[in-house]
Amino acid sequence: MSKLRVAAFTLSIDGFGAGPDQDLKNPLGIGGEALHKWMVGTRTFRNMVGEKGGTTDTDDGFTVRSFENVGAWILGRNMFGPIRGEWPDGSWKGWWGDNPPYHVPVFVLTHHEREPSVMEGGTTFHFVTDGIHSALEKARAAADGKDVRVGGGVATIRQYLQESLIDELHLAISPMLLGSGENLFAGLDMLKLGYRCTEQVATPDATHVIIKRD
Amino acid sequence: MSKLRVAAFTLSIDGFGAGPDQDLKNPLGIGGEALHKWMVGTRTFRNMVGEKGGTTDTDDGFTVRSFENVGAWILGRNMFGPIRGEWPDGSWKGWWGDNPPYHVPVFVLTHHEREPSVMEGGTTFHFVTDGIHSALEKARAAADGKDVRVGGGVATIRQYLQESLIDELHLAISPMLLGSGENLFAGLDMLKLGYRCTEQVATPDATHVIIKRD
Repeated sequence: MSKLRVAAFTLSIDGFGAGPDQDLKNPLGIGGEALHKWMVGTRTFRNMVGEKGGTTDTDDGFTVRSFENVGAWILGRNMFGPIRGEWPDGSWKGWWGDNPPYHVPVFVLTHHEREPSVMEGGTTFHFVTDGIHSALEKARAAADGKDVRVGGGVATIRQYLQESLIDELHLAISPMLLGSGENLFAGLDMLKLGYRCTEQVATPDATHVIIKRD
Repeated sequence: MSKLRVAAFTLSIDGFGAGPDQDLKNPLGIGGEALHKWMVGTRTFRNMVGEKGGTTDTDDGFTVRSFENVGAWILGRNMFGPIRGEWPDGSWKGWWGDNPPYHVPVFVLTHHEREPSVMEGGTTFHFVTDGIHSALEKARAAADGKDVRVGGGVATIRQYLQESLIDELHLAISPMLLGSGENLFAGLDMLKLGYRCTEQVATPDATHVIIKRD
């Protein structure tokens, strides 16, 4: 059955999914890059950015799993880029170059209409202006029975969690503090929303936890 | 040098140090007991509650460390007991029976004066009504060069963190969600307060992290 999934999403010990002051130079906010140490050394990640080698252990296993059976993605606008307000034109096509690592349809939540951007390698960015339910419907249709992955950022995941729409989250908790930024759980009663932690596996660079809806 | 330490303090993935609705039947709040699964199976803990056996692995190692070189404790009143407001009399002597597991002076933060309670095994409960700095001074003097351990709860630890008074925290993050309760980090910018995570070791039941002040 098609699931709505969050996968390989990294948090600091104090619960932040990205550092403060996100901009073009710091797409993950200040300190946000170091959060993802567990992933950047894996073979899967290195292969994705055109490099060779990399680890093939537990961290890589979770990275592999995060891409399995994904038929479409949903991204918040801040995860797609640093532009706020109206799109000046169609020239910003994401952080990831001509061949983004999605290779399937990607639905970007925004308040501002824009034509789709067809990229190399099978990725097409669609811009959804009528809310998270509409984005989910469109993504499910596009995924054709496969899972829909919510890529982030924190605000987008929180919106779907608030309505208990996410079936499964894989979070990687990095052994660092960020101090401020966007907090994933603040004010969300995950138990009341129906979630339970079902698995924990740790490596030197992250504690991987699986959270599922009852 | 004498440190102010937090040790073997357990948090849920969503950052809560105790569950909601603490009372006599649920001293750690609802769900709070399950949080401490990593500790209750250890040899050190079982020995403390008069039982034999128990694990001697990483979880036990951290439990052992948590008691090493501790010359005095500081506890918040809610950790000492469920009574609120004025003390009706001196009959409540903590959750732990006649021989509490401290064996050194324990300073209980309260707004209401009360005579000390001298217990078996070296524990004396002193009641401090003039704030966290006074409690720290008294505890340091009593510890005579050894460390002072802040036992909790969350509100007490947060007060000392807010003034960057804690030198070192050992937190055990349990693979469960509590949904609500007292959140350790909410609204505290741990980086600005000068803290860094320096160590992570995980077991099936907890991720142990060490956080130190720069």
